[in-house]
Amino acid sequence: MSASKKVMIAVIGVGGVGKCFLSQLRSLAARKPSPKLSLCYVSSSRKALYHDDYAEIALDGVIEALAASSRSPPTLPDVIEYLAAAPAKAILVDNTSSQDVADSYPLALSRGVSVVTPNKKAFSGPYQLWQDIFAASGASGAKVYHESSVGAGLPVISTLKDLVETGDKVIKIEGVFSGTMSYLFNSFAPAHGQGGAWSDEVIKAKALGYTEPDPRDDLNGLDVARKLTILARLVGLPIQSPTSFPVQSLIPKELESCNSGDEFLKKLAAFDSQMEETKVAAEKAGKVVRFVGSIDVGANHVKVGLDMFDRSHPIAALKGSDNIISFYTERYGSNPLIVQGAGAGGEVTAMGVTADLLKVIAQIS
Amino acid sequence: MSASKKVMIAVIGVGGVGKCFLSQLRSLAARKPSPKLSLCYVSSSRKALYHDDYAEIALDGVIEALAASSRSPPTLPDVIEYLAAAPAKAILVDNTSSQDVADSYPLALSRGVSVVTPNKKAFSGPYQLWQDIFAASGASGAKVYHESSVGAGLPVISTLKDLVETGDKVIKIEGVFSGTMSYLFNSFAPAHGQGGAWSDEVIKAKALGYTEPDPRDDLNGLDVARKLTILARLVGLPIQSPTSFPVQSLIPKELESCNSGDEFLKKLAAFDSQMEETKVAAEKAGKVVRFVGSIDVGANHVKVGLDMFDRSHPIAALKGSDNIISFYTERYGSNPLIVQGAGAGGEVTAMGVTADLLKVIAQIS
Repeated sequence: MSASKKVMIAVIGVGGVGKCFLSQLRSLAARKPSPKLSLCYVSSSRKALYHDDYAEIALDGVIEALAASSRSPPTLPDVIEYLAAAPAKAILVDNTSSQDVADSYPLALSRGVSVVTPNKKAFSGPYQLWQDIFAASGASGAKVYHESSVGAGLPVISTLKDLVETGDKVIKIEGVFSGTMSYLFNSFAPAHGQGGAWSDEVIKAKALGYTEPDPRDDLNGLDVARKLTILARLVGLPIQSPTSFPVQSLIPKELESCNSGDEFLKKLAAFDSQMEETKVAAEKAGKVVRFVGSIDVGANHVKVGLDMFDRSHPIAALKGSDNIISFYTERYGSNPLIVQGAGAGGEVTAMGVTADLLKVIAQIS
Repeated sequence: MSASKKVMIAVIGVGGVGKCFLSQLRSLAARKPSPKLSLCYVSSSRKALYHDDYAEIALDGVIEALAASSRSPPTLPDVIEYLAAAPAKAILVDNTSSQDVADSYPLALSRGVSVVTPNKKAFSGPYQLWQDIFAASGASGAKVYHESSVGAGLPVISTLKDLVETGDKVIKIEGVFSGTMSYLFNSFAPAHGQGGAWSDEVIKAKALGYTEPDPRDDLNGLDVARKLTILARLVGLPIQSPTSFPVQSLIPKELESCNSGDEFLKKLAAFDSQMEETKVAAEKAGKVVRFVGSIDVGANHVKVGLDMFDRSHPIAALKGSDNIISFYTERYGSNPLIVQGAGAGGEVTAMGVTADLLKVIAQIS
């Protein structure tokens, strides 16, 4: 196999997911037979490593080599131009959560550069961007895969695409789409046993690293709304944005103006009675409260917020910080197709990216 | 797009799954833009419909046209020769459960004809056949996809392949792999409430069409053993055959020699105390009994049979005739990746076949 037959890989982003991805890529490349890929570009927000002649970058020690590089990242259009002019087909792996990189997908795809990413921004932002992305992909034949944008490495997007593409009729999608929310409610209102006070559980989750640096970024529901936007669009609903449907925020109105996450956490206990009431109301009905997202396809209705479930319901029985996604379809009838497991974390998110990369390579090489 | 660029599709088998598959294919072909496929061959056990010039067979009314055909099916080597000589790449869709067709996959693959099938026989039969299939595929580049051979359309094989190919370490696979066994135990020993007598549940399951015509074909555990064989081999274990590891049969020894399923069903009640004892023993431990398969990868140990589970365990909480498959891996840690839902039925089995077909077309066209 000549070097020019290898697919060129460019990686933007070397944070938690990016580092895990590069590590998985190194293991892949060391395998016999190895996949036909060659790393030609890698960048952080401040540095870039690449060669004008597209010479292969060694995966061993790539993070150190990037840190030692004297080159700054070119502009995104220049990176895309570099890849479009490569002597082989190229794949852009976006391991950032940057809106700027997401905005460049239509250009990349239109130039024949495939895109693989866990970045939610492109698929959950303005509907026009979504349309531009898939129009560019359709016109050029370049692929765009984003399994890890919902549920990390769990087979959520691939399963939904299979259902839709083979002609099943999706009726409803429902689930727990946030590892943080899953942990909080499994602890606060467990299906069996007693939970702690709401603010205590939030503080504990932050200490365990289960929340964003500012927990309000989880509690506002926007992360879940972005994931629902992606799934709803895959089913064909023209969702305009992640704020164009009802999203319940768990941030008390009075605390929206806090200057910091720490100030918010200090003041949250004063509002524990609100969540406690919700929990007790569910208990009186023999149920538990959970933070879920749902898409009612027929009614074109998407919503994100608190709901109550029987203790024996799979959503109530969830453990730890697991996600669960239930697909109710015509073919599957009353019992949904369910996918469940860790929906966050560097390794499992990178796994979704790596698996997507292999699928794209299989199609374009 | 010229007709010669379309991928040629040959379909063997027009039973329950075959009919659903052809119906899904018809819906696909009617879509705009339609996938680049052309049906060039279809056969039942007695008839075949094809044209020597590979002219496209209309999907509308194909079952009727096949019934009206005057041609008998050629031998399998002749069918493969016909496909290998086609003016475009070809895919053989085997919707039978025939060992003969399965035995012909190495020849088809070596001649560049891809294979898509729900047929378990090729992948769970002699280990040599498994090796021959993947060696032929590796050498020619022809693809072989068989999602529906385990759990019908549920994303079981694709998920396991993604885990393995991206370098995760699979530690254990455990689950309920038979819709029949699922229904029987969910009814006989429900997690909440009382079940009926074992023989009554078997008779009820047969009446509902949930068992094979002779229920012993479900109760002997071989169907589950075949599925475990496939998954274990995908993880890399060189399982010689589905009878090379412990498989617990639920057919009482004294009834193995019954001449018919009906005779078996009549005599089964006399042995109800055996199953009742197992159920009571589980209840005393606060558990329920289930018929499961498991693969302990590190210990190279596969087994199929009865086991006990806590009432809150996802396997105990299963409903109806659903399957559940749990993947315990290094990346997913203590909480497994779980896939759950209907694992049998014409439409969902055909869906797995259709989805595989689309994936192969995306790679070879």
